[in-house]
Amino acid sequence: MKIGFAGLGGMGSAMAANLLQAGFALTVWNRSPQAAQPLVSAGAQQAERPEQLADADVLITMLADDAATQQVVVDSGLLQRMKPGALHINMATISVELAKRLTALHAEHGIGYLAAPVLGRVDVAAAGKLNILAAGDSELLKQAQPLFDALGQKTWHFGADPAQANVVKIATNFTLASAIEAMAEGSALVRNYGVSGADYLQMLSSTVFAAPAYQGYGALIAAEKYSPAGFRLALGLKDVGLALAAGADSHTPMPFAGVLKDNFLDAMAQGDADLDWAALAKVAARRAGLK
Amino acid sequence: MKIGFAGLGGMGSAMAANLLQAGFALTVWNRSPQAAQPLVSAGAQQAERPEQLADADVLITMLADDAATQQVVVDSGLLQRMKPGALHINMATISVELAKRLTALHAEHGIGYLAAPVLGRVDVAAAGKLNILAAGDSELLKQAQPLFDALGQKTWHFGADPAQANVVKIATNFTLASAIEAMAEGSALVRNYGVSGADYLQMLSSTVFAAPAYQGYGALIAAEKYSPAGFRLALGLKDVGLALAAGADSHTPMPFAGVLKDNFLDAMAQGDADLDWAALAKVAARRAGLK
Amino acid sequence: MKIGFAGLGGMGSAMAANLLQAGFALTVWNRSPQAAQPLVSAGAQQAERPEQLADADVLITMLADDAATQQVVVDSGLLQRMKPGALHINMATISVELAKRLTALHAEHGIGYLAAPVLGRVDVAAAGKLNILAAGDSELLKQAQPLFDALGQKTWHFGADPAQANVVKIATNFTLASAIEAMAEGSALVRNYGVSGADYLQMLSSTVFAAPAYQGYGALIAAEKYSPAGFRLALGLKDVGLALAAGADSHTPMPFAGVLKDNFLDAMAQGDADLDWAALAKVAARRAGLK
Amino acid sequence: MKIGFAGLGGMGSAMAANLLQAGFALTVWNRSPQAAQPLVSAGAQQAERPEQLADADVLITMLADDAATQQVVVDSGLLQRMKPGALHINMATISVELAKRLTALHAEHGIGYLAAPVLGRVDVAAAGKLNILAAGDSELLKQAQPLFDALGQKTWHFGADPAQANVVKIATNFTLASAIEAMAEGSALVRNYGVSGADYLQMLSSTVFAAPAYQGYGALIAAEKYSPAGFRLALGLKDVGLALAAGADSHTPMPFAGVLKDNFLDAMAQGDADLDWAALAKVAARRAGLK
Repeated sequence: MKIGFAGLGGMGSAMAANLLQAGFALTVWNRSPQAAQPLVSAGAQQAERPEQLADADVLITMLADDAATQQVVVDSGLLQRMKPGALHINMATISVELAKRLTALHAEHGIGYLAAPVLGRVDVAAAGKLNILAAGDSELLKQAQPLFDALGQKTWHFGADPAQANVVKIATNFTLASAIEAMAEGSALVRNYGVSGADYLQMLSSTVFAAPAYQGYGALIAAEKYSPAGFRLALGLKDVGLALAAGADSHTPMPFAGVLKDNFLDAMAQGDADLDWAALAKVAARRAGLK
Repeated sequence: MKIGFAGLGGMGSAMAANLLQAGFALTVWNRSPQAAQPLVSAGAQQAERPEQLADADVLITMLADDAATQQVVVDSGLLQRMKPGALHINMATISVELAKRLTALHAEHGIGYLAAPVLGRVDVAAAGKLNILAAGDSELLKQAQPLFDALGQKTWHFGADPAQANVVKIATNFTLASAIEAMAEGSALVRNYGVSGADYLQMLSSTVFAAPAYQGYGALIAAEKYSPAGFRLALGLKDVGLALAAGADSHTPMPFAGVLKDNFLDAMAQGDADLDWAALAKVAARRAGLK
Repeated sequence: MKIGFAGLGGMGSAMAANLLQAGFALTVWNRSPQAAQPLVSAGAQQAERPEQLADADVLITMLADDAATQQVVVDSGLLQRMKPGALHINMATISVELAKRLTALHAEHGIGYLAAPVLGRVDVAAAGKLNILAAGDSELLKQAQPLFDALGQKTWHFGADPAQANVVKIATNFTLASAIEAMAEGSALVRNYGVSGADYLQMLSSTVFAAPAYQGYGALIAAEKYSPAGFRLALGLKDVGLALAAGADSHTPMPFAGVLKDNFLDAMAQGDADLDWAALAKVAARRAGLK
Repeated sequence: MKIGFAGLGGMGSAMAANLLQAGFALTVWNRSPQAAQPLVSAGAQQAERPEQLADADVLITMLADDAATQQVVVDSGLLQRMKPGALHINMATISVELAKRLTALHAEHGIGYLAAPVLGRVDVAAAGKLNILAAGDSELLKQAQPLFDALGQKTWHFGADPAQANVVKIATNFTLASAIEAMAEGSALVRNYGVSGADYLQMLSSTVFAAPAYQGYGALIAAEKYSPAGFRLALGLKDVGLALAAGADSHTPMPFAGVLKDNFLDAMAQGDADLDWAALAKVAARRAGLK
């Protein structure tokens, strides 16, 4: 089975490495070719252009956003040249709207299409411990499972329509941003009464909120350490935008998402696009008159 | 050491029982006297009126809200009759404003005053596993620790001003309500794309949100089971009101709290005051056109 | 007919002067006695303490807020000493909750009670051109009309329960604040595209929004001139708080009021309490990255 | 001077009729050709396809939205075939993003481009009393003025970049929606205290809010008469979406717009897309428990 893999950012590189290590034959492509070097050293082939991945039995893409996905998969002519019966597994976080469009386009070309966005950052990807949020045809999902097993600790199924996995991923990221904002507002409140924000967040994430989301972001907010960014605030804004767009398309009011968007924009307007998205706490603190 | 204990709701009864079992001499009072029966059977004395607790070395109160606390502690004359040097530990969730007023009033009367609201529901209280959020004079906190040890698994200190423990408790409840709302909006969104809300919430609370708050409320939302209420929606509205009041007093904008308040009011207006506060998810679902 | 008048701020002084000029016999009281001098020169009697107004046939109060009203009318003993059959017309902006309490209290003492808050600033009051928002017993309203005629251009009736006039006044002030916020957000938006905020607001308040509210506050926002304050931002926060309290009591979600409150708090936290409430536009501009 | 006019909805038909009456030679096009009949009877030529307008000296478009504008002006090949030195005046409400794209595209083809969206409904357009919000090159604006004089009572200039007129129009529609929402929330509040919403709105729009926006929409809300729609709720949602998109692009938080979007979505989810956008008041009333 020949695997094509496009998109070698931090996540993609770690995932491709795990596939290699599991014994899959891999041809990789990345816009900046040098990102492929470690994988080539480990035995991967390298394509110079996306469309050179067209003879893969399974194409995996892990591209930055809707625009990159559209360009690499469709505009390059890659999809149009794939072999009938081949399978494309899109593991990036993209919009519901693009997911629906890609689903239709793949069907037209006789190419299988699965959405399988993931939960976990680079270290989790490197450890092969991702949670994989998958949706699409159940036969295709079975076919993809050996690949998923090499990449993650667990695969969750959300339905037969690929867009369903994307909306689940979007809702999850919205919930992460909401957790950050709740910690941001709560910390600003207790700090305005002279309580240490760090003490408060330590208690919170040790008791009813003893979960990775609160522990990780709580520690960043407690330390007011937003750089280097684990996940850039500008990407947080993008993902909340995906939630609002999905909400608009389906007539789902999302007032928390509206608040989040405004606070992300406030942060962007103050020049904080490149901080970690936990810097929502800077917005809450500034608005509350904290230094 | 003589202990007076006022307020024998579910929480108070469980806490008083643990104090008895730990060997403390207890006189209890409750507005509805029959609630004291199990404790009397277990060896407690019963007072007929709050002011009969005035000879206690330590008075513990666990009353429903600001109004009940004001009435039982101050209006009844209890505080005014306590012995100089006695200690009052207020373990209820009250407003920052009342906390400040009680602090001043106790100082005037030479009575020690600690705030020690708790995290955990009745079953946690019964198991003696509460988390105790304490603030006040450090000597008094030391003095109270043996009592806290009988009631909880851990005591957290938040400062020398009792109101600081109250604001921490208020911020924590706000964070709980925010978690519920985020699950409510996220579930409505994925359901509008045909994804099972239960599947989504199961994944969420098994991965990045693997914490009691998400597991407990996620299960209620997944099952749409809001009755009987573990914590009544009307009380949730009250607590969000305490957060907004503390925010207003300290000039802390809390946009998530504003959204929560409106959604609680929407639920109240539809007649859902007595459901569990996880019924915020009913508001989100209805507004999203879900049956 | 003897008239007592308590509360000689800018509004009260102008109103009392019009009553004098219309030939009514007036005894006035104000916390700072010197404010009464111009009225005494114009023929008014001056009381040294509120309770000296107790023999009035009609008592008019125009006090700063709930606390002042409670203190001057009730705590001083004034109400308790008024003559059975006398009438109290409360023209201040107070909470619905206090309005209900005062209504009950006056009934207990056999004193008539009307609420008649007003629309218009000091110059409008001085010109006798106020709009009077009145509620209460219809016979009492007839009795009061000659006084209203001396004070305003028109009296609007909103029901038999005095609180109804208060909620109308509160809703009107909420609508004013909402107009300011809409201009604030809209101006920030067009300015971020290089359009002159002044040009935009000039067009807006000359066309579909050709009304005093937009013309007056639009000019302040266009000129970024928030001092001296026509209506202090801190009072705007108080009035939005009255709207939110009335909303909470009646289970009326008011999401615009929630946004307003947060933006007022943001302004307060930056030290702008004493600016005109049109300075909501400073908050919108700062959050949008405008200098 | 040959004028081409594309888009004969209610607004476009009324505007084209005024141009004819002012003596301009007009060729018109509309997707549904029968809409052109009255104009042809009055002396206009009719084009069968958009690109047949390519020989116009001045092209005026008044199309439904971004998609229609893109299709008729660009995708049809019309723009590409226009004569160098010709002028296109786009009078529709389109996004800032499309305005910027069209500006660049026209420059590439040597075609002048002005944005001139209008304020006023069909009756105002028919009376030639529109307010015209114009932006673009000042020489082109001078050239267009005789046309604007035939269409409106006043032309407002907002800058040299066409997008500036679009953002002004978008901000104005946002302000209209905000006025509706403020009336909706205020009416719900007073109604929950037994005050007639009609009485409240009558007072409001006769005093500080004596402007067309409040008088017109206030009357609809008072009568709860949302059909037939003067401006469809679905279009209101679209326009608030344009405001949010412009805000996102320029990093301008717009919390009122966020609230509006959620309430429009709530209305859409209940099936009210085709009501007048004043039906925001139905959302407020329903959430407040009013029948």
